[in-house]
Amino acid sequence: MIRFGGFHMPDHNETTTPLTAEEILRRDAAAVSAVFDRLPALWTGAPAKLVEAIQYSLLAGGKRLRPSLVLECCRACGGDAMSASVLAAAAAMELIHTFSLVHDDLPAMDDDDLRRGRPTNHKVFGEAMAILAGDAMVTTAFHLLATQADTKIAPKLIAELAGAAGAAGMIGGQVIDMASESISLTFEQLRDLHAKKTGALLVASARMGAICAGANESSLAAVTAFAQHTGLAFQIVDDLLDITATPEQLGKSTNKDAGRGKNTYPSLLGIDGAKAAADRELAAAMAALTPLGKAADGLRSLARFVVQRSN
Amino acid sequence: MIRFGGFHMPDHNETTTPLTAEEILRRDAAAVSAVFDRLPALWTGAPAKLVEAIQYSLLAGGKRLRPSLVLECCRACGGDAMSASVLAAAAAMELIHTFSLVHDDLPAMDDDDLRRGRPTNHKVFGEAMAILAGDAMVTTAFHLLATQADTKIAPKLIAELAGAAGAAGMIGGQVIDMASESISLTFEQLRDLHAKKTGALLVASARMGAICAGANESSLAAVTAFAQHTGLAFQIVDDLLDITATPEQLGKSTNKDAGRGKNTYPSLLGIDGAKAAADRELAAAMAALTPLGKAADGLRSLARFVVQRSN
Repeated sequence: MIRFGGFHMPDHNETTTPLTAEEILRRDAAAVSAVFDRLPALWTGAPAKLVEAIQYSLLAGGKRLRPSLVLECCRACGGDAMSASVLAAAAAMELIHTFSLVHDDLPAMDDDDLRRGRPTNHKVFGEAMAILAGDAMVTTAFHLLATQADTKIAPKLIAELAGAAGAAGMIGGQVIDMASESISLTFEQLRDLHAKKTGALLVASARMGAICAGANESSLAAVTAFAQHTGLAFQIVDDLLDITATPEQLGKSTNKDAGRGKNTYPSLLGIDGAKAAADRELAAAMAALTPLGKAADGLRSLARFVVQRSN
Repeated sequence: MIRFGGFHMPDHNETTTPLTAEEILRRDAAAVSAVFDRLPALWTGAPAKLVEAIQYSLLAGGKRLRPSLVLECCRACGGDAMSASVLAAAAAMELIHTFSLVHDDLPAMDDDDLRRGRPTNHKVFGEAMAILAGDAMVTTAFHLLATQADTKIAPKLIAELAGAAGAAGMIGGQVIDMASESISLTFEQLRDLHAKKTGALLVASARMGAICAGANESSLAAVTAFAQHTGLAFQIVDDLLDITATPEQLGKSTNKDAGRGKNTYPSLLGIDGAKAAADRELAAAMAALTPLGKAADGLRSLARFVVQRSN
């Protein structure tokens, strides 16, 4: 950016070259990271070991895709992506996502040793602490929204997040996933499973961002449809990467789906069929954004990234 | 009650004889039970087995002391104890309490087989489902408050509940409790442990009830102090009952504290010393209620019940 005689003269890049997905993710991750830095204020008096266990998983990196979806949907709907409400929403979303990873990795569940390139939480802190650290991430997420978001929209944001994370959403999806091992699902059943297990949180991310922007019903519907299609594409690619990527690329174990008798899109559709399905969902996600015009360019970059990523 | 010619003629009992604690608990439990009956609307599309696991623990009875504390503190501060907000607050509180029991009973934590007179959740549904059912109780509690409580006070209620349940409250208390096994605590350390592990939720119950009544600062301070003292009395009596009661009376295992090297008030103060401490806390709780006058009679009954109970 060039400042000239008090006037703001945008440079060429700023007006014509959209940010890459990596640049968007980096920018949004930095904004959310600043919120995480202030979380210890909500933990005053908490046992140091518990805070350490929470931060071990929360600050371990990861793509921060969900927070970015919150912030970019806010931008796409014309909102201020640096408002206290939307930053709290983005951070709360990542807290809930990280809680789900910590609990899903437990020996009683998926029994995973590696996550985001490091030993899983219970491998480092023990099972009891991992359960409690996950629990505390959930209460922190709602505490953050209740105290940092604009009180006029906080109940709406909390309802979106709690509903998406809960028995009819992500947690319910994990139950169905575990119950479906070694049972053959149809494409529709598998889609329903993932609409709950991973889709619900992605859709809530989009809706919370739009709510923070004060979006009207038609914009809210646009980002909802976008997130549904992107969520399905995301899951199909996840299944593909489990087969084609290395543990080093993913930062977690690979080739575990087949060993566990998990239903996956490649097992149902073949590798080429699954790739074609991901492309179809990407196209549908893009079509959903049409009403939002150029303001949604950040979301378009993110959606392409989701389908083309290698980790 | 006698209705006469369209006029409401209160009978003798209604104006002069306060309800017993058992009558208060029964009345309040019935009100909260009606909220629980409507929870399935928040779980539409959830796996049936997950709903079954949640309801197994949530509807297993128990004294419903915390919901009663919410409702009676609302009454003591002049509020309508049948308002949607306070009923949601009472039910959300019991959801969080029940979640903590389900997770604390897990093999990785206290490894208990018996709770409220029945096999613990993980004994019936398995560890994975018990973890997820507990998780879903938490999201349901916040979902309920965000959708049923008056939006003007919902953020305050959610902040109270999330703060009290979280890393600096109940969950932090459980971490300290587990870390303190086989280490000798002082009276002050033990009091701090319980202020977090059981006290925080009792204090939040009182404050949420008062917030629903639109209480002023002095009434809020009165019920806060009342709950702090009652909470400590409650825990001392809990420790005493672990030694003196039978498993049949308590509906859970007894004599487990000593075997685990847990710090208890009787082990620090002796049985008679612990009984005297409980009585002192009861007196302090009663003194805190003075500013609220006769409106707090329900709370007085509850506090006496807490100290004199045999289960």
